[in-house]
Amino acid sequence: MDMRIKCTVSYDGTGYSGYQVQPNKRTVQGEIESVLTKLHKGQKIAISASGRTDAGVHAKGQVFHFDTPLRLPEDKWSVAMNSLLPPDISVHKAEAANADFHARFDAVEKEYRYFIHLSSVRDPFKRNYAYRFPYPLDLEAIEAAKKYLIGTHDFTSFCSAKTEIVDRVRTLKRIELLQEDDMLIFRFVGNGFLYNMVRILVGTLLEVGQGERQPYHIMEVLEKRDRRSAGKTAPGQGLYLWEVRY
Amino acid sequence: MDMRIKCTVSYDGTGYSGYQVQPNKRTVQGEIESVLTKLHKGQKIAISASGRTDAGVHAKGQVFHFDTPLRLPEDKWSVAMNSLLPPDISVHKAEAANADFHARFDAVEKEYRYFIHLSSVRDPFKRNYAYRFPYPLDLEAIEAAKKYLIGTHDFTSFCSAKTEIVDRVRTLKRIELLQEDDMLIFRFVGNGFLYNMVRILVGTLLEVGQGERQPYHIMEVLEKRDRRSAGKTAPGQGLYLWEVRY
Repeated sequence: MDMRIKCTVSYDGTGYSGYQVQPNKRTVQGEIESVLTKLHKGQKIAISASGRTDAGVHAKGQVFHFDTPLRLPEDKWSVAMNSLLPPDISVHKAEAANADFHARFDAVEKEYRYFIHLSSVRDPFKRNYAYRFPYPLDLEAIEAAKKYLIGTHDFTSFCSAKTEIVDRVRTLKRIELLQEDDMLIFRFVGNGFLYNMVRILVGTLLEVGQGERQPYHIMEVLEKRDRRSAGKTAPGQGLYLWEVRY
Repeated sequence: MDMRIKCTVSYDGTGYSGYQVQPNKRTVQGEIESVLTKLHKGQKIAISASGRTDAGVHAKGQVFHFDTPLRLPEDKWSVAMNSLLPPDISVHKAEAANADFHARFDAVEKEYRYFIHLSSVRDPFKRNYAYRFPYPLDLEAIEAAKKYLIGTHDFTSFCSAKTEIVDRVRTLKRIELLQEDDMLIFRFVGNGFLYNMVRILVGTLLEVGQGERQPYHIMEVLEKRDRRSAGKTAPGQGLYLWEVRY
């Protein structure tokens, strides 16, 4: 009988056209599946992740699962996979899971972080790992605005207009702002996130921080349920899928 | 009359075959000179740096100078250069210098840092920016060994055998070990460094930290004046030219 393996993986999204397999594109899923297929001597192995990430978006703790007929000790899976994976993908942990475990449907909480480099001077070492923002920000206004977002809401205004999912109600449990030197970090914890949701939340909160929107205006944006009422989509390279909790 | 401009530049060395121009290779000097030549409408502009860096080696504060017939306000040079430079090179500062200032000959002190990622698990975000070292290290032994290196010595044993410079006497003013989470940072301050010197110093100190050499053995290595008596050359991606002082 096949065994189900759960893996935690981090990746630098810079060199990828996103997580999900696309024809003729370098994708994270494509790299991992090709390595697993090699380890299974050509037998095609498909993986299921907790969700997709876009081009340039990073992961510190993405989770996926797959089924295997091989009887490898669970801790050997990460060694075997890492020996074949490119250096910008690393499996941190592999463990045996219940046969009905599902990386996507069993996730109860996700954490994303968004890194903003507050600097007028560009930094070659941060260019792919943060969004450089050279304008002054009113952090108190952002703190005031985020209160309207926390809780259970229909987040239609904060997801890509291309989203096909009908139920856009999600619960945002926490939004935290941390500052470390010239880096401003947004931490988002919720039960689930819609397509582009974190990037649109960040883009909109930055407009509040610049005084282009009043904090209470966020309430109206939520009520409108229209993508056009929210702010810009912040760029992908600042975003990290940080952790998935089960 | 031409004006001499002094620039401080940082670069991510990952995508470069080193600092110095080489035919058909992407080099930091090549990128900067091509941008300056564009800004001078085709007039070839050459730059002189404080020293070279090898393939994959980074700089936080490399310094170079050039001469220009243009009368641009000094603070405009960095804006103009950065608008044309690739994102992995960034000019932090540009200032008018005396006509006899020389980035290489006037440097009185240089600081290099070497980053070691102490981890058995590879980290996609550190792969190009540190040397991953998964073995235990005796930091006290390294601290004991470094004392033999501080001061004025003939560092022939600690420079590439290919070095053509005859005078290999240099003064190492300071070697410091800093630990931040799983990152061990070596800080080297000296009046000048020979080719590959920091990388060979690090490689040799790591052998001391692993118990492969006794700390006092460093004294013998110095005395032998033979590259073969020292340890391995640590890889380039952990090294940063941190600062040049004048």
